Amino acid sequence: MDEKAYDLVVIGSGPAGQKGAIAAAKMGKRVAVVDRNEMIGGVCLHAGTIPSKTLRLAILYLTGFQQKTFYGQAYSAKDHVTVEDLMFRVRTVIEREHAQVTDQLKRNGVTLVNGWARFVDTHTLQTDNGEQVRGEHILIACGTRSARSPEIPYDGHKIMVAEDLGRGDGGQIPKSMIVVGAGVIGLEYASMLSALGVRVTIIERRPTMLDFVDREIIEALRYHMRRRDAIFRLGEHVTGVRMQDNGLVRAELESGKRVTADALIYTVGRQSNADQLQLDRIGIGTDPRGRITVNDNFQTPHPHIYAVGDCIGFPALASTSMEQGRIASTHMFDGPSLKPAPFFPYGIYTIPEISMVGRTEQELTAERVPYEVGKGLYEDVAKAQMVGDRAGMLKLIFDPDTLKLLSVHAIGDEATEIIHIGHAVIALGGTVEYFRDNVFNYPTFAEAYKVAAYDGFNKIAGAG
Amino acid sequence: MDEKAYDLVVIGSGPAGQKGAIAAAKMGKRVAVVDRNEMIGGVCLHAGTIPSKTLRLAILYLTGFQQKTFYGQAYSAKDHVTVEDLMFRVRTVIEREHAQVTDQLKRNGVTLVNGWARFVDTHTLQTDNGEQVRGEHILIACGTRSARSPEIPYDGHKIMVAEDLGRGDGGQIPKSMIVVGAGVIGLEYASMLSALGVRVTIIERRPTMLDFVDREIIEALRYHMRRRDAIFRLGEHVTGVRMQDNGLVRAELESGKRVTADALIYTVGRQSNADQLQLDRIGIGTDPRGRITVNDNFQTPHPHIYAVGDCIGFPALASTSMEQGRIASTHMFDGPSLKPAPFFPYGIYTIPEISMVGRTEQELTAERVPYEVGKGLYEDVAKAQMVGDRAGMLKLIFDPDTLKLLSVHAIGDEATEIIHIGHAVIALGGTVEYFRDNVFNYPTFAEAYKVAAYDGFNKIAGAG
Repeated sequence: MDEKAYDLVVIGSGPAGQKGAIAAAKMGKRVAVVDRNEMIGGVCLHAGTIPSKTLRLAILYLTGFQQKTFYGQAYSAKDHVTVEDLMFRVRTVIEREHAQVTDQLKRNGVTLVNGWARFVDTHTLQTDNGEQVRGEHILIACGTRSARSPEIPYDGHKIMVAEDLGRGDGGQIPKSMIVVGAGVIGLEYASMLSALGVRVTIIERRPTMLDFVDREIIEALRYHMRRRDAIFRLGEHVTGVRMQDNGLVRAELESGKRVTADALIYTVGRQSNADQLQLDRIGIGTDPRGRITVNDNFQTPHPHIYAVGDCIGFPALASTSMEQGRIASTHMFDGPSLKPAPFFPYGIYTIPEISMVGRTEQELTAERVPYEVGKGLYEDVAKAQMVGDRAGMLKLIFDPDTLKLLSVHAIGDEATEIIHIGHAVIALGGTVEYFRDNVFNYPTFAEAYKVAAYDGFNKIAGAG
Repeated sequence: MDEKAYDLVVIGSGPAGQKGAIAAAKMGKRVAVVDRNEMIGGVCLHAGTIPSKTLRLAILYLTGFQQKTFYGQAYSAKDHVTVEDLMFRVRTVIEREHAQVTDQLKRNGVTLVNGWARFVDTHTLQTDNGEQVRGEHILIACGTRSARSPEIPYDGHKIMVAEDLGRGDGGQIPKSMIVVGAGVIGLEYASMLSALGVRVTIIERRPTMLDFVDREIIEALRYHMRRRDAIFRLGEHVTGVRMQDNGLVRAELESGKRVTADALIYTVGRQSNADQLQLDRIGIGTDPRGRITVNDNFQTPHPHIYAVGDCIGFPALASTSMEQGRIASTHMFDGPSLKPAPFFPYGIYTIPEISMVGRTEQELTAERVPYEVGKGLYEDVAKAQMVGDRAGMLKLIFDPDTLKLLSVHAIGDEATEIIHIGHAVIALGGTVEYFRDNVFNYPTFAEAYKVAAYDGFNKIAGAG
């Protein structure tokens, strides 16, 4: 059998695999990436982050979402937004990104091997096309797919998982929708749908949602989603889903409630694709969701086999996955030492968007770390007036004695961008005085940092 | 005569005056602000930054500016954008801000005195309504207006200054326009007009423009404005402007060229309003443009009289003016010591927008400071693909030995926001390694920092 040998074989071309492959190639290594040609870019590009974030921006624009502040609720840029309007834009972006990722891998001399990979032994992979590749090192970045529940009768049209929505194969926008699961993915889709005018009911088994996020931010999110007619059913369990004769989907809840809607989307977690790799042949185990356990250097029990990205679980963000890919490759080839950052930001692309870096009030309280809070409302900065954002808020948490900045929590326009200002101040050991003593461009959302810092100083002075 | 006495009398309620007044009020001082009621907020709010930046956002939205990347050049959200469409939004924002500024001053116990102020003696001011106020301290924040050339026949409709455009009293959007002066204000208006589809000719006496900005950024701006049919006539002097019989405005240039257009706007600098204050009565001089000279603490030759904001000249940005107001008040009342930041960012709201913090390549070269450059193109980050920004670029300038970040220069969407990430890293003494070692939310424009940092490392490694 024809077998090619590489310094590194990467399984999967999503954010983690890409960055790992390129980092190794830049160190002069021979690198192959195994993935299906049409899936280059991974689930992130084809059915995850990229389509959902593109869809979100298209919805915000085409519905004239913030313009309503100026022109009233009836305003929309296109009077009848169709699935095709939205999907046109998503396809354009996917095509461009697909070309760009492919090009970037090729430009760096990475070999693309078309197909699904399976382990033959600890150094050898075989694709479903029968091609065999051998790697001195192997980087597993096989990603995840939506977890499915055996009792849900998925049809991909009325009863869906996230991948089905991302594909959006034509048709009308439903008038009402049930979202099962109030995790990041569920809330992002629920946000978009409600911005589109869809009546959304969100059902979540736990009594709370996004527990790693500041409570006040979550309450603000719920408040704004409710104003768009979203209904939250927390602490409720879906016991059955069925299609009614009238074409509506019905979810039955343990509490006896019944919720009907035009469609239902099931977002209750992710299933690792590691179950496709025949890991049992090489003695690597996984948990029930298929997640691979790794050490601090992202090594599996076989030190030459690394795993990164969503398939190792938390935090499963494109941003952290890229770093993991780079860190794994530099570790395996003794490149310039990279260490995982001690903390990292979260970006949640709900509407309004949410971002945070550092610990929440509830975590600090549990750890008995004293803190003070400075808050800046977007409505107190001119740019928010200009763009029509009346929802935004930025919260600085700092040590009341040393004034060191501990964390930043934000909801509102560009929250995922401006969080990085506070991120830098925390990482470099700065205090809230930084925001008082430095000048911020006017008009920007970044000015909310200054408003928040002054609020914090007032609180310490006992005036607030 | 009825005379009221205050610890501080502030002349002008623009950004500098507002923040100075509030800072003093928060220290428990009795404060009055003298300004005409309808002008609370200053020229910034009524004819400057706020209307122009609001107009800019309205134009970007209503013309579907970036949507053209997806839907083609013919796309616009409203097929016929009218002056009224644009001005509706501007008026809404001005009304809200006007109410907010007035409310904020009142909430802080600041007395508003309606009218124009003139000095009677070094402690006393009289308004044009005959009201007299006395201040232990006086803060001059009287702002500026457009400078006018005596030989230009202004009519406020066809031959205008910036204040006229900001007012936008109805009518059609012109098909063509001449902008005399390629300063920040001229280029901001020229950008908006060209985004609206107006054929713009920019005439500037000097052979270069915005010399404090990185050359590469300026060239990118010119490139993108030219693609919208803007014509730059640099190194050309306007010797005469006249109305032709056919209703067009004609500018005659020293070189013999004639430029005709539907209208002309004259943006060749600002004239301080200090000439309205009768400063000669109290022995404070000004330069030919009416600017007041102050020391490092913003004190005039009379130590109890301070001057801040546009009326003292450079940099004349709302952002720095606010800081000057705060610094002056804390200095006069021995508040917690504030020092002017050693450097500050610039935000230029052209299309695409520009922002920078720290020295340019040309300054560093003149000062013989060695440096290396790392560049990140927006097109290499996913968010730019999603929003349709193909123009953006971020440039990191750093010390090649210590890797310390020296400056950041950006053009593109949200440049004025994300510049503050680099700003914090510079201010807190960080290196370009910061951007390599930390995680950035995906998708964000902020990711361009990471792209730029890697580019910089490649350059140092000699890889190009």
